Amino acid sequence: MKDLTTLDAYEVGFDIPAKPGMDEADIQTPALVLDLDALERNIKKMGDYAKAHGMRHRVHGKMHKSVDVAKLQERLGGAVGVCCQKVSEAEVFARGGIKDVLVSNQVRDAAKIDRLARLPKLGARIIVCIDDPENVGELSAAAVRHGTRIECLVEMDVGAGRCGVIGAGKVVALAQAIEAAEGLRFTGIQAYQGAMQHMDRYEDRKAKLDAAIAMVAEAVAALKAEGIACELVSGGGTGSYYFESASGVYNELQCGSYAFMDADYGRILDKDGNRIDQGEWENAMFLLTQVMSHAKADMAICDAGLKAQSVDSGLPVIFGRDDVEYVKCSDEHGVIADPQGVLKVGDKLRLVPGHCDPTANVHDWYVGVRNGVVEVVWPVSARGRAY
Amino acid sequence: MKDLTTLDAYEVGFDIPAKPGMDEADIQTPALVLDLDALERNIKKMGDYAKAHGMRHRVHGKMHKSVDVAKLQERLGGAVGVCCQKVSEAEVFARGGIKDVLVSNQVRDAAKIDRLARLPKLGARIIVCIDDPENVGELSAAAVRHGTRIECLVEMDVGAGRCGVIGAGKVVALAQAIEAAEGLRFTGIQAYQGAMQHMDRYEDRKAKLDAAIAMVAEAVAALKAEGIACELVSGGGTGSYYFESASGVYNELQCGSYAFMDADYGRILDKDGNRIDQGEWENAMFLLTQVMSHAKADMAICDAGLKAQSVDSGLPVIFGRDDVEYVKCSDEHGVIADPQGVLKVGDKLRLVPGHCDPTANVHDWYVGVRNGVVEVVWPVSARGRAY
Repeated sequence: MKDLTTLDAYEVGFDIPAKPGMDEADIQTPALVLDLDALERNIKKMGDYAKAHGMRHRVHGKMHKSVDVAKLQERLGGAVGVCCQKVSEAEVFARGGIKDVLVSNQVRDAAKIDRLARLPKLGARIIVCIDDPENVGELSAAAVRHGTRIECLVEMDVGAGRCGVIGAGKVVALAQAIEAAEGLRFTGIQAYQGAMQHMDRYEDRKAKLDAAIAMVAEAVAALKAEGIACELVSGGGTGSYYFESASGVYNELQCGSYAFMDADYGRILDKDGNRIDQGEWENAMFLLTQVMSHAKADMAICDAGLKAQSVDSGLPVIFGRDDVEYVKCSDEHGVIADPQGVLKVGDKLRLVPGHCDPTANVHDWYVGVRNGVVEVVWPVSARGRAY
Repeated sequence: MKDLTTLDAYEVGFDIPAKPGMDEADIQTPALVLDLDALERNIKKMGDYAKAHGMRHRVHGKMHKSVDVAKLQERLGGAVGVCCQKVSEAEVFARGGIKDVLVSNQVRDAAKIDRLARLPKLGARIIVCIDDPENVGELSAAAVRHGTRIECLVEMDVGAGRCGVIGAGKVVALAQAIEAAEGLRFTGIQAYQGAMQHMDRYEDRKAKLDAAIAMVAEAVAALKAEGIACELVSGGGTGSYYFESASGVYNELQCGSYAFMDADYGRILDKDGNRIDQGEWENAMFLLTQVMSHAKADMAICDAGLKAQSVDSGLPVIFGRDDVEYVKCSDEHGVIADPQGVLKVGDKLRLVPGHCDPTANVHDWYVGVRNGVVEVVWPVSARGRAY
């Protein structure tokens, strides 16, 4: 098979923004660019932290949707595997060689359950979350049908207000039902508090996590009292991992955004009141854009709009510049205030997207650069995998 | 070659949400569903309107990014071709057999200009917009290099505050430069007023368009005074097409959203004060989603979040229901307020996305349904084509 990345985009009929060896200045825009040095430093730092605190780190693959990034996290950050949110993502990671895959979500549709139950045949450990007794029978029947074993975490709602059961009693009842079901194994508790991750103040985040930890500790104690083994207690994100690590009840982290960072996460404050993108983590993923119109003196128009990023968490920030500002986003355009007229058509700028996860999801490729040169071009392996 | 739509998703390694002949209830979620009857009625209605008013209708392909929908618009709506915003989209439409393609945008990057200049070789008429004299030489050199002809519209900023020149003098100067350049042809004026399309009140929209029409009329007169032929004056969207049609200066429309509708466009009011999705146009594109958790009595969680839609113009609306409401959107989840507990796990709902264009751009397939049965599965042909 031909190496697709060496073919002309016009020839193959789809778009590749760069080729390895190319100068960074020649990358086609809009494109997602990874600063490989910064990415590797972020990955090592979180890996070292998890190791020093005796925590497993199951990196969140839903953020980057990339087998290549996940493998880098295994190699440099000691990641034990990935979590992801959809069965179709889990298929991509398991096929890509990730051996421990958690679908940190409910799977209720019959066709999706069937796909999930087939996944262990690829040689990966497959774990899924449960918050409803009815789901136990559905999963069990599929595992039996395919002769596989599905591991299960009971998902607790520890304050996020989304999926998950509330209360130790429900956790124990579900664990018992799982243990009694053929083809299933009760593996532990999923307890991710997603709603506090983006709260600005460290103390506010701590208060929410203290409450979550109390709920989880009660459930763990209740399981123990019933003699039910609980291998994993999994949760934690970029805005909370130090709380879970110090909790004494969690033993697995699920951080995702720390690797790439984004403008919205970057604004939250660490223990000392500093933005987390000013020391704790580095911006490693950028949306490269080009100025393509400057017909008005104080306004540049760039080629990255709503189809190159998600603005659900705010507009992108122009990296390293305080003389120009991205002020408006339409489908294919960004309006950049350029009061001093410093930009010209053809100029390229690095944007820090407001929210990395849904931004990655609209792109097909990551362009990894180091010292101004394109080193790798990685597919966004699970882009669009929403089933 | 095997018919990919008949293969199992697990077998081919990518996801297809449905197969023709399948019951609508079996479509995998989240998926974009087209109500083919409503879509065809919308397309015919706009086509009839354009014909009755002597307007060419160049449908906006950037909205749906689908060769199949564009061809339906040609067949049922008399569309003369498409416009789109990116060279890579134009490649998809031209390869797909659309014979008249306008890139209603500036193309300034050298690699993109080269791709554009090659496109006429596919047998399509290729038109592009210009708002900078420097671009004339860039385009001309590429057309000469490839032995092709690129047609050019001078883009006017008629109030949108984005790309485009302001003033008849600049239009004439650019037209003269284009006419003098080898390999280029001056074809007319691009004058789309995008900033007023979503203003609620008809009168407010009319005031903005009156101002735009005055600017365009002045430019058309100035061209005439210089003896420069101006074949096309192109513009108009779903919130304004009646103004351009009555203007006496525009002769080509560029409507896009009318075909699918969305929640944000649907809220604007027609001349009589009625929402345009209550008579003028029908909702024809839906984001099908499934309830996958209902662990709390008054709250259902569905499987369509930020990676299945864009919320830049607001949250989706649940079609045909006033007893439940989509109240929160996270990466892979939607939170649905269900105060009476009427939903259950497995239920499927049709969402009307807030904004159709960037929502279509995150999906790979349209599932066309009629009378409860899947009739067609169309690729979102230009999804992700952002170059």
